[in-house]
Amino acid sequence: MTGDTRLDQLIATLPEGSVITDPASMDAYRWDRANDPRAGTPLAVVRATCTEDVQAVVRFAAATGTPVVPRGAGSGLSGGSSAVDGGIVLSLDRMREIRIDPATRMATVQPGAFNADVKAAAAEHGLWYPPDPSSYEFCSIGGNVATNAGGLCCVKYGVTTDYVLGMTVVLADGRAVTLGGPRIKDVAGLSLTKLFVGSEGTLGVITEVILRLVPALKPPTTLVAVFATLTGATDAVMAITRATRPSMLEFMDRPTILAIEDATHMGLDATAAAMLVIQSDDHAGAAAAEIAKIEQLCNACGATECYATSDPDEGEAFVQARRMAIPAVERTGRILLEDVGVPIPRLGDLVTGIEAISLAHDVPIAVVAHAGDGNTHPLIVLDPTDTAQQQRAQLAYGEVMDLAISLGGTITGEHGVGRLKCAWLPGYLGDDVYELNCRIKTALDPQHILNPGAVFDPPVEVI
Amino acid sequence: MTGDTRLDQLIATLPEGSVITDPASMDAYRWDRANDPRAGTPLAVVRATCTEDVQAVVRFAAATGTPVVPRGAGSGLSGGSSAVDGGIVLSLDRMREIRIDPATRMATVQPGAFNADVKAAAAEHGLWYPPDPSSYEFCSIGGNVATNAGGLCCVKYGVTTDYVLGMTVVLADGRAVTLGGPRIKDVAGLSLTKLFVGSEGTLGVITEVILRLVPALKPPTTLVAVFATLTGATDAVMAITRATRPSMLEFMDRPTILAIEDATHMGLDATAAAMLVIQSDDHAGAAAAEIAKIEQLCNACGATECYATSDPDEGEAFVQARRMAIPAVERTGRILLEDVGVPIPRLGDLVTGIEAISLAHDVPIAVVAHAGDGNTHPLIVLDPTDTAQQQRAQLAYGEVMDLAISLGGTITGEHGVGRLKCAWLPGYLGDDVYELNCRIKTALDPQHILNPGAVFDPPVEVI
Repeated sequence: MTGDTRLDQLIATLPEGSVITDPASMDAYRWDRANDPRAGTPLAVVRATCTEDVQAVVRFAAATGTPVVPRGAGSGLSGGSSAVDGGIVLSLDRMREIRIDPATRMATVQPGAFNADVKAAAAEHGLWYPPDPSSYEFCSIGGNVATNAGGLCCVKYGVTTDYVLGMTVVLADGRAVTLGGPRIKDVAGLSLTKLFVGSEGTLGVITEVILRLVPALKPPTTLVAVFATLTGATDAVMAITRATRPSMLEFMDRPTILAIEDATHMGLDATAAAMLVIQSDDHAGAAAAEIAKIEQLCNACGATECYATSDPDEGEAFVQARRMAIPAVERTGRILLEDVGVPIPRLGDLVTGIEAISLAHDVPIAVVAHAGDGNTHPLIVLDPTDTAQQQRAQLAYGEVMDLAISLGGTITGEHGVGRLKCAWLPGYLGDDVYELNCRIKTALDPQHILNPGAVFDPPVEVI
Repeated sequence: MTGDTRLDQLIATLPEGSVITDPASMDAYRWDRANDPRAGTPLAVVRATCTEDVQAVVRFAAATGTPVVPRGAGSGLSGGSSAVDGGIVLSLDRMREIRIDPATRMATVQPGAFNADVKAAAAEHGLWYPPDPSSYEFCSIGGNVATNAGGLCCVKYGVTTDYVLGMTVVLADGRAVTLGGPRIKDVAGLSLTKLFVGSEGTLGVITEVILRLVPALKPPTTLVAVFATLTGATDAVMAITRATRPSMLEFMDRPTILAIEDATHMGLDATAAAMLVIQSDDHAGAAAAEIAKIEQLCNACGATECYATSDPDEGEAFVQARRMAIPAVERTGRILLEDVGVPIPRLGDLVTGIEAISLAHDVPIAVVAHAGDGNTHPLIVLDPTDTAQQQRAQLAYGEVMDLAISLGGTITGEHGVGRLKCAWLPGYLGDDVYELNCRIKTALDPQHILNPGAVFDPPVEVI
C-alpha cells in the first residue's frame, strides 16, 4: 500500500509485481543513456505485461492528470525517457514477444524486444530486419519505433519507418487502437502509423508493431580507407554517394580512431585525420566491382591507404570497431552526444566546422558519422570534475546544432529530440511548423500527460 | 468581373488568365477519372502558377468559408478531386518544374509535373524514380503524393511515401510551410511529411516535393505464366513472394486477358483462367536464376505454360499489355474501379470471392492485381443504359470492399478514399481510428474547407 488511494487501486488492477514504488528500485528507471541531470523522481514505475496493463496505467494517468513516460530498454540518447517528478515510468521491458511469419515476411513484435532479438528471430527464417542502430544489441524495438531510429545500413536500406506496417497504440485517454496492418499497400485514411513512428511517446504508447522483413543480406565486401585530411574523407563521401550505392558508409575522425585504438589495439592508423568504413552487399562479383570503384574514388580524393576484403568476418571486425566508437570515447570522459545531419554536399563544412568549435571552446569533440546519410555523431567529451569545461561543452553542444541548421541540416537525424534538444526544436522547425506539431500533439493528448517535457517543451498555444 | 466582389479581389491578385469562371470551360476541371456522378458546380477554377497563388486562394477560401478542391492531372480514380458546389477547384497543372540534383540523388518537383516527366528527368542522370502507377504517363506527382500512389514495382521498391523526403505545403489558413528537406535522416519533431503524404488534399495543398531517387534499374528478366485455375495462380503468388524477391508480380484474370487480347491482338491465351507477369531485375545472371526458380514454383502450382525472356523489349511488351488492362476493359463498358488489398495469404480467397460476387449479381468483374502486394483492382463493368444492372454493380462494389475487410484487407491500397469510398471508411477503420483521423483533420483544418466531402464525410464530432 502506498497511502495513495488511487494509485493503490491501479496497483490492485495490475499483475502482482508490476509496480515499483521503492525509490532505490525506481532509480534503475529514472535515466536513459543520456543521463539527463534533470531527470525527476517518479511516483511509480510500472512494468507492463500486456496492452491492457498499459491501458490501465494511461487511464489512471488521464483521470488523475499524472504524467506518463513510456520507456523501452532505456538506451535512448536524448533523454526521451528521463523520469518526470510525480509521474509514472511505464516500462515496456517485459513485453518481448516476437512472432515471425515467413510466408508474408513480417514480424509482429512487442515493444520491449531488443532489435537484435528481432534480427535473430528473422534470421532463423532466412530473413532480415534492416534497421541497425549501433546499440542494436541492447535497444528495444519500441524505442526504435518511437524515435524512428536509424543505423549503419540506412544509407541503402532506409530507416525504421520504412519497415513499420502497423501498430497497436494506447491513446492518451486509454483507448487501444490498431493502425495499419499486415498489408504492403493501404491508403485508407491518414498515414497514422507513420505519424506515430518517431513521435517519442508524446502521442501514444506503442504496445505492438508489425515490421516488414526482407530476404537475408548477402555477405558484404568491405573497404577501409584512410585519409590525411578531413576534407579528403568528406570529398570521398560525396564522390561515393554520387556514383555508387554502398550498403554502409561510415566516417571516423582522428579522436574517434584514437579512442577505438586505445580500446581495441587493433592497429588502426593513429596518424590518420579520418577513416571511412565502406561496404557493398551486391552479388559477389558486383560487390567487389563496386568496392573497386569506391577504392578508386577514395584514391582520387587523396586516400593514403585503402584496404579491401571480401572476408565477411574481417569486414565485420572493422564494423565492430566502428560500433565501438561511442563506448570507446566514453572511456575518455563523460560524453554529450550529438546527432546532427546535413545534406551530403555540406558534410565537409559540418565536420570542419565542428573541429573549429572544438578548438574555439577547448573541448574535445570526436566525430563519428553515418556519412552516407550526412548524419554525424559529434561526441563532446566532458570532464565531470571541471565545471568551467562543462559550461564550454554546453556552448559547443548548442553551436554544433546551430552550425547544422545553418548548413541546411537537422538537429537530430536518428536519436530524437527527447529532453536534451527541446530548446532547439522551435528554432529549427520555425514557428509555423512548431505550431503545427503542437496542434497535433494537443489534438491527440489534450492534457499533455504523455511524455511531458519531451520534444514539445514548452508547448505553444495553438493559434 | 464576376459580380462577386471578394472573388473579383482574388482574381485581381492572381496572374492574368489564372481564373476560369465560365461554366463550359470549368467542365474540364469538374471530374477526375472516377467520373463521380455527384461532382458539383464550382464557383471558379484557379490554375495556380506558384506557391503564392495557392496561398492567395486558400486565404480567400478561409476568409469566406469556400471549399477548395486541389487537383493535379485529374487522373484520380476515387473522386478525390471531384468539384464541389460553390467551391474553388485549385488546379496545380501549370506548376510543373523539375530540378534534379544528381549529386544527392534528389528531385525537387512541383505538383503538376507528370510522374513520367520525373522519371525522364531522373533518367538523364542515370537515376530512377521508382513509384510507377499504371497511369504514370498522365498522372501528376502532386496526385501521387496526395494519394500515396503505388504501382507495379512496389512489390520490391515500395510506394510513394518511401521516396518523399520533404515538401512545401499551404495550410488551411494560407500559411506555407516546409516540412522535411533534402536529408536522408531527420527525426526532429513529428513525421509531418509522412502525415501529409496520402492525405488527399484534406490537410493542406502541396506545392513542392523533394523526392529521393535511386540508381537506374538494371534491365529485367521477364516471365509470363499461364494458369488454368484462379487458385493455381494465387498459390503461385504466395509461393513466389515467400521464396523470391521479384521486382514485379502482376496478375490478370480471364476477363482481363480477354479485354487486353481484344484491344491488342498480341496472342494471349484466351482459355487461361489467369496469367502472371513477373520480373526480376537483379544482375543478369542472378535475375535469370531467380526467374528460373519462379518458373519452377509456377509449374509446381500447376502453370499450363511459362515463357521467360531476358530481352527487355519483349518483357516490356507484356508489361505494357498489363498496363493496358484498365483502358482495355473500359472499351467493354463504363467501369467502377476497385482497389482492395489483402494480406498475400488471403489473395486466393479474395479473387475467388470476387468471382462469386460477379456471378451472384450478374455483373462482369475483371480482376487485375499487383499480386505481390496483395493489391487488386477488380474492374466492375457497368452498362450505362441498364439502370438495374448499375444498381447490382453498386451492390457488388460494396460487397467487394466488405469481402476485403473480412479477409483482413483494406478498402483502398493505392487509389485513395476520395469521394467514392467515404461511406466505407468509418466501418473499415473502426470508430476509434476514424475519430483519430477526424481529430487530426479538425486540428489542421478547423473550418473543413480543404477538399470537403473527400475521405472524411461525414466528419465525426471529436469526442
